[in-house]
Amino acid sequence: MVRVGDVLLGADAPVAVQSMTNTDTRDAAATLAQIGRLAEAGCEIVRVAIPHADALEGFGAICAASALPVVADIHFDHRLAIEATRLGAAKLRINPGNIGDVSRVDAVIEAAGEAGIPIRIGVNAGSLAAEYHDRDLPLPEKLAASATSFCEHFESRGFTDIVVSAKASSVTTTIEAYRLLATRVPYPLHIGVTEAGTQFSGTVKSAVGLGTLLEAGIGDTLRVSLTADPVEEVRVAWEILAALDIRRRGPELISCPTCGRCEVDLVPIATEVERRLRAMASPVKVALMGCVVNGPGEAREADVGVAAGKGVGLLFRHGEPVRKVAAADIVDALFEEIARLDEAADR
Amino acid sequence: MVRVGDVLLGADAPVAVQSMTNTDTRDAAATLAQIGRLAEAGCEIVRVAIPHADALEGFGAICAASALPVVADIHFDHRLAIEATRLGAAKLRINPGNIGDVSRVDAVIEAAGEAGIPIRIGVNAGSLAAEYHDRDLPLPEKLAASATSFCEHFESRGFTDIVVSAKASSVTTTIEAYRLLATRVPYPLHIGVTEAGTQFSGTVKSAVGLGTLLEAGIGDTLRVSLTADPVEEVRVAWEILAALDIRRRGPELISCPTCGRCEVDLVPIATEVERRLRAMASPVKVALMGCVVNGPGEAREADVGVAAGKGVGLLFRHGEPVRKVAAADIVDALFEEIARLDEAADR
Repeated sequence: MVRVGDVLLGADAPVAVQSMTNTDTRDAAATLAQIGRLAEAGCEIVRVAIPHADALEGFGAICAASALPVVADIHFDHRLAIEATRLGAAKLRINPGNIGDVSRVDAVIEAAGEAGIPIRIGVNAGSLAAEYHDRDLPLPEKLAASATSFCEHFESRGFTDIVVSAKASSVTTTIEAYRLLATRVPYPLHIGVTEAGTQFSGTVKSAVGLGTLLEAGIGDTLRVSLTADPVEEVRVAWEILAALDIRRRGPELISCPTCGRCEVDLVPIATEVERRLRAMASPVKVALMGCVVNGPGEAREADVGVAAGKGVGLLFRHGEPVRKVAAADIVDALFEEIARLDEAADR
Repeated sequence: MVRVGDVLLGADAPVAVQSMTNTDTRDAAATLAQIGRLAEAGCEIVRVAIPHADALEGFGAICAASALPVVADIHFDHRLAIEATRLGAAKLRINPGNIGDVSRVDAVIEAAGEAGIPIRIGVNAGSLAAEYHDRDLPLPEKLAASATSFCEHFESRGFTDIVVSAKASSVTTTIEAYRLLATRVPYPLHIGVTEAGTQFSGTVKSAVGLGTLLEAGIGDTLRVSLTADPVEEVRVAWEILAALDIRRRGPELISCPTCGRCEVDLVPIATEVERRLRAMASPVKVALMGCVVNGPGEAREADVGVAAGKGVGLLFRHGEPVRKVAAADIVDALFEEIARLDEAADR
């Protein structure tokens, strides 16, 4: 088990949601504002890049005021990593392969040990250690072998406060690399598909790759990488966890694809219901169905449901039909029922 | 192997992309227009609901003019299914559990046999046959058992031109049900998470559920269900297949998550590149990277790539640095390189 601020990773701890700020780390106020938005969206650990010494001062101010444990993300320059341990980092993320000479890696290990914080060994297909470039191995094997050998080096220095990642932009490479890692290292795994792409394709790639791993029980913390507002990364991460019934944050909405059987215009109704549900914290399960084929069945399984027919909706609560409402009143009626459920739960 | 119009399902045939129209089937012109848009987006088989006898005339007109093989989706009324076989359906989809008396199911089997078209046995958690409601079995087992017993009945009638599905709105139930089916029936599997929800959550649920199955080699055709324009279902289906390197349609874009290291504003650049790539058919791999950490590595793996630094982008072609361009010129320069690649490929 690894502790990142007040968040535990590994063993039976809940799979934690991470993201990374994309503000300029020198601008502590902007970075803290973004961390605030990330925390509100359900982010539990936040990573901040320290690309150069100019960013250190901001980093210290960010750690001091952050609502979330802050991970220092450092490449190339081991002195930045050592400084970060002194400025309040809750964890370091380095790729030992680009830190240079082993004595520099050891200096980072020593500093983290003194500060009592973990290090993520973050191997990445785009920056694999040079010694693996020409090895005749499949890429997932190279990634796993590189990460494993770094773990062994850390262990030889008496340091086992480790989290491991081995990301690639290829989903299949990522899946294979983590499957290998899961059998080889005893440390919590940070999973992610790197450079997954824009909001659309990055969401699909991350959901496929991280979903496949999590379904197999692999992964202790996840970061969805999107070329987008990092708040979107957090939303997608939670949606992946919810899809697999691993963790849920807020309500669940089941709504049917519209088809030629649909007798009400369901798309705007579903969009509005989703928008209003987003503001709610209770884990209510809502079903919104456009016809009588699967409608009543699904609506019955939900806490609150509507099966829509010709211009009307039949409301269900915990499996029992409650009343019929006009199509135009479906959304309001649904939220009245949800409010009643919440009241009943509060009593 | 099953043939749906000119599309083969099962064995070594490519995993086929399906969607379903949400127009009124009585409006053949609107339905055909939607089928045209679906075909353009990469849909290979289209399903059309026939909710009542009024829809049959339109269905015949749709089959006669459709660019894609048309599947007739029928519930409750076996006579509609029989009529559909005579009107040009390339396949039927029924849930035998809601057709009623077995003699009615048998009449549908006979009609499909005469027309020489396959039937999808489409079991669904929301409309499971009544006999399973009170059985003390986990839901995935109920779904698989119900589908399997329908298969056995079809076989007893000498009909084996079968596709099978067993969908649930729960991703984990869906995954488990198909894992069971894959070991129990020899027929092509149509996979889908039903009532997956709005574009956002439905995309994630489908990518997690169908991605997990496809990665395990389960699934011969897929439909992504979204409460959205069905064209979006097709885009998501292709993105899932591409994520797993199963099939690819058009270009691939790798772009990095933006972080504090990013020295150019990558989000608008990535959005514009994705928009322009969408119109292209060639399977070019494009990398768009915002810094020097993984940038050059990923950009090298791509056919064309940019690693952006302070206000400039370094262009790569097949791993070789080509030239530096100003940040404002990255998108145009990238597409010039892609055009050159395409020209070279044409020679």
